[in-house]
Amino acid sequence: MSIRMNCAFAIYVCLVSASGVAVGGESLEQMSQDPNQWVMPGGDYSVNRHSKLNQINVDNVTHLQVAWTMSTGTLRGHEGQPLVVGDMMYFETAYPNYVYAINLDNVERVAWKFAPKQNEFALSVACCDFVNRGVAYADGKVLAIALDGHVYALNAKTGEVIWQATNADPELGQTMTSAPLVVHDKVIVGVSGGEYGVRGHITAYDLNSGKQVWRAYSTGPDEEMLMDPEKTIDGATQKPVGKESSLKTWDGEQWKLGGGTTWGWYSYDPNLNLFYYGSGNPGTWNPTQRPGDNKWSMTIFARNPDTGVAAWAYQMTPHDGWDYDGINESVLFNLDSGGESLPALIHFDRNGFVYILDRRNGKLLRADKYDPTVNWASRINLETGRPEVNAQWMTEAGKNVKGICPAAEGDKNMQPVSYDPQTKRVYAPLNHICMDYQAFSIKYKAGFPFVGAVVEMYPAEGGNRGRFISYDPAVGKTEWEIKDMFQDWGGALTTDGSLAFYGTLTGWFRAVDVHTGKILYQFRTPSGIIANPITYMHAGKQYVAVLSGVGGWAAIGLAADLHKSSEGLGGVGLTASLGDYTNLGGTLVVFALPQAGDQTTALLRSSPSSDKKGD
Amino acid sequence: MSIRMNCAFAIYVCLVSASGVAVGGESLEQMSQDPNQWVMPGGDYSVNRHSKLNQINVDNVTHLQVAWTMSTGTLRGHEGQPLVVGDMMYFETAYPNYVYAINLDNVERVAWKFAPKQNEFALSVACCDFVNRGVAYADGKVLAIALDGHVYALNAKTGEVIWQATNADPELGQTMTSAPLVVHDKVIVGVSGGEYGVRGHITAYDLNSGKQVWRAYSTGPDEEMLMDPEKTIDGATQKPVGKESSLKTWDGEQWKLGGGTTWGWYSYDPNLNLFYYGSGNPGTWNPTQRPGDNKWSMTIFARNPDTGVAAWAYQMTPHDGWDYDGINESVLFNLDSGGESLPALIHFDRNGFVYILDRRNGKLLRADKYDPTVNWASRINLETGRPEVNAQWMTEAGKNVKGICPAAEGDKNMQPVSYDPQTKRVYAPLNHICMDYQAFSIKYKAGFPFVGAVVEMYPAEGGNRGRFISYDPAVGKTEWEIKDMFQDWGGALTTDGSLAFYGTLTGWFRAVDVHTGKILYQFRTPSGIIANPITYMHAGKQYVAVLSGVGGWAAIGLAADLHKSSEGLGGVGLTASLGDYTNLGGTLVVFALPQAGDQTTALLRSSPSSDKKGD
Repeated sequence: MSIRMNCAFAIYVCLVSASGVAVGGESLEQMSQDPNQWVMPGGDYSVNRHSKLNQINVDNVTHLQVAWTMSTGTLRGHEGQPLVVGDMMYFETAYPNYVYAINLDNVERVAWKFAPKQNEFALSVACCDFVNRGVAYADGKVLAIALDGHVYALNAKTGEVIWQATNADPELGQTMTSAPLVVHDKVIVGVSGGEYGVRGHITAYDLNSGKQVWRAYSTGPDEEMLMDPEKTIDGATQKPVGKESSLKTWDGEQWKLGGGTTWGWYSYDPNLNLFYYGSGNPGTWNPTQRPGDNKWSMTIFARNPDTGVAAWAYQMTPHDGWDYDGINESVLFNLDSGGESLPALIHFDRNGFVYILDRRNGKLLRADKYDPTVNWASRINLETGRPEVNAQWMTEAGKNVKGICPAAEGDKNMQPVSYDPQTKRVYAPLNHICMDYQAFSIKYKAGFPFVGAVVEMYPAEGGNRGRFISYDPAVGKTEWEIKDMFQDWGGALTTDGSLAFYGTLTGWFRAVDVHTGKILYQFRTPSGIIANPITYMHAGKQYVAVLSGVGGWAAIGLAADLHKSSEGLGGVGLTASLGDYTNLGGTLVVFALPQAGDQTTALLRSSPSSDKKGD
Repeated sequence: MSIRMNCAFAIYVCLVSASGVAVGGESLEQMSQDPNQWVMPGGDYSVNRHSKLNQINVDNVTHLQVAWTMSTGTLRGHEGQPLVVGDMMYFETAYPNYVYAINLDNVERVAWKFAPKQNEFALSVACCDFVNRGVAYADGKVLAIALDGHVYALNAKTGEVIWQATNADPELGQTMTSAPLVVHDKVIVGVSGGEYGVRGHITAYDLNSGKQVWRAYSTGPDEEMLMDPEKTIDGATQKPVGKESSLKTWDGEQWKLGGGTTWGWYSYDPNLNLFYYGSGNPGTWNPTQRPGDNKWSMTIFARNPDTGVAAWAYQMTPHDGWDYDGINESVLFNLDSGGESLPALIHFDRNGFVYILDRRNGKLLRADKYDPTVNWASRINLETGRPEVNAQWMTEAGKNVKGICPAAEGDKNMQPVSYDPQTKRVYAPLNHICMDYQAFSIKYKAGFPFVGAVVEMYPAEGGNRGRFISYDPAVGKTEWEIKDMFQDWGGALTTDGSLAFYGTLTGWFRAVDVHTGKILYQFRTPSGIIANPITYMHAGKQYVAVLSGVGGWAAIGLAADLHKSSEGLGGVGLTASLGDYTNLGGTLVVFALPQAGDQTTALLRSSPSSDKKGD
């Protein structure tokens, strides 16, 4: 263990000093408290995706209009969201990963555009379309990743590259799709490639220089995982993880191809100075080929952002046999429990269980099925912290196990939920799908698929493939649901206007009454929505913005023009009819209310007549 | 001369029999009189692009909203328009030339989609982006062309191919971009490739069988041009064209590479049973290399649709030295002249003159500069029908002639005007650009560029590259103009609501008061507009629809990622900053008025709550 671990676990001591560290004047955390802006992918560090704005509300949302639109110039899946920092908007497209900056005072002109030069080999190893989940902002810099594994810090004023770092190597199957998280002076980024034998890691780069500060692998020796055998807590047991907690759960050196990639969303607690993220599936998808728990794949990690050292780790799906990546967001909230208000996190896992953990130590507080069709495990044992797997639906090499629920895409994938502190409910865009899963043995070759299973996915009971629900975490209950034909693959936004916003795979963008689930407004955007709405205030007017642009695993058949249902990791057949409803194409769509008696163009605060001199 | 010419010129006799021939019940002409529909690319045979609808009008257009949108799934230039036939909408995208059918009762689902298999070699010879100008409809069939030279008749109900014909060969530089015209049982199509030594032709296919009925070349022997030396009238002289009127205007066999391609819009007069179209530039762009008038390039033709035989031909730019293609639309209207109402056509030519001809015989009635900067000719001599060329701006091999106005893209290119019979004005989206033109000798090689000039284009006086004007054809006067930064490269629509609609290259879609030129409404569509708005009525509600999707010659730098101003036939430098304003990406955008107190979603007549069962 190195010096950098010395203060790693003094979490109860470090609380005060870690909180609210300023980054170039006003801290990012302070900025995120201003509802006029949307300065982080998740809105704020808690990743609540909730806004205190209420100019648009249940009473007037039926009058919502499209204020302006902008094609992104790209066709593939848009899984991100714009940021709004002051008067500026920033967003990133699907590959080729253009980054656009727009001055909201003059949206007809792109302030700057960044187009990274990329290693096109990335296109041959990106498993599930060429998606992107957005940029981060900090200290006058826009932080962006490119599919080919590069991280860029761009001058937020000019788009010029301040520094770039190489975080992943497509030749080894590594790509990048996720939005960075900036904490203090660290830019934290993950890696994709769980289907290519990639050994997952999370890495911090210095915000000012771009130099790598630390890297923490999901598997392997303690030192490389930045785990302290005596201090890092196993959430399941509430005991230290002990020596080589990963190595002993793998056969030989399989951990080197061990997966546990880190392509989801990252949240952060400034008080605890811990950030939270999940790791993905172990490699390969064939469980017979890799005996053991395969730690720390399928795990929620809490780490110190300054050192990378793990405070705790909780593995949700030991020895995964279903591709139930654990990368989904962990939303920070306070759980009312027996008169107490516990600092908790809530995590809708791909495996169909919603986990509520004490975010201080990873202790499991609740785990409930959020889809009644879940059958691979009967329950999560709160004592052991482990799932009670139903042997009938455990997979193994050479056997086609049918009727497993949920499917590999999960009962929810990375499409992020929103937690509304007013209603104390989670609004979750979900999948509702099952699968047949036939594992087989496969040999690793760098840069080639290392999947080891043929999967067929199909709708779960009822025929609808998606649901949008209101969920009460205190009692583990779904309060209402909207059934959708296809997976709800875009994220949610809630506001103090008592509204939840989300989009469907066919392109409907909706505003829903948080109390009743009634759809109050919907608009048909150009393409299917797999991105995440945000809201902001500009010049006294509230706007809601979302990227429309179908793709991703849910739409891989449409995106990659695949037609055999077993292609695209089994995602093709599930949405084979999606092309009857929508087309590829990235567009930013921005909504607002009209002012009484004004022109639609007033939504933009632009005077049509002034355009006579030129546009 | 063959038998098929026997009745070709009995135009005064055939009037009655030719008018209103029914095609499967109600005739296409009758259908085009129903303002609820938009059954032809130009609205009706006159290509007025005017609608009698007035639900949306000057008094309420400020409340216009986007009703729905649909990505076309393609990135290149969209120069077409939807058709509306009954409850169905049909439109075609840029390459790969998808054809979509949408039932307007259920716009969330594509009724059918046709994706032609194409010879990708077409991509290497399409001069100016991979644009398309739309489909035609007749008798339960949707007629579509593909860039690679195929013509398809699709079952309008199912999208199945009823027949296909091969009209062009990309290996010879031939491509197709224009919308077909259907008259009686003939499907009339043109050809592109004037920059590849293509010998232009216009061809009719049998609507029911797809068999070629006739083909008329723009250059060559009389028989192949379907010209009758004794009966085909030369519009300029009002005398018969005489024998081999084309051959004698070319050096040797140069007419075989003679250009005169036919990629514009076609209008038709049912009473005269004549259709009208223009031919493009002669090959090469180097005039020194091809002495003579180079007939019949740069010509407005009137032909019999049943036989193809030419009634008259009027050459606007003999011995072109500027690439002033004559392919622009000829709009049929009645000219008030000395108490008479003459059957006329009006043609805003690329060369900067607006021609008004008697459409019975091609007689030149008026020719006026519609942009005061035009300098290549001082005037069109009404006696000779020929331009009086200013020697200073005539081009020749080896000389860089500077400051020629207009530039090769013309003072107007194929973006079609609208004639409003209420105001008797033409509403014209125009360019406002000049050029330096350096011709050079070039050798022909099949499938390779045969351009022979280096051109640099730039804004004309005032700095704006585009104008939208109201023009009074009776007196040859511009009444008002809107100046736009870039070329106005999309077409116009007028309505009985006293509105003119058009879009800008940066993506503004505008409604303008036809009387004053005041912009009453504008909306920022996802991409730049080079397409043509239409309007229709569905279930009692008027809609206005336009394809947003920048590209074409005006945006070739953006579309093809070219950066040297001399690339893209000189079109790159002119719009080098366009990428600061807009991005590629095809989207159908449909506008409507909200109903009093209703929800925006009511624009679609869809009930949000009904969607709870799935979308």
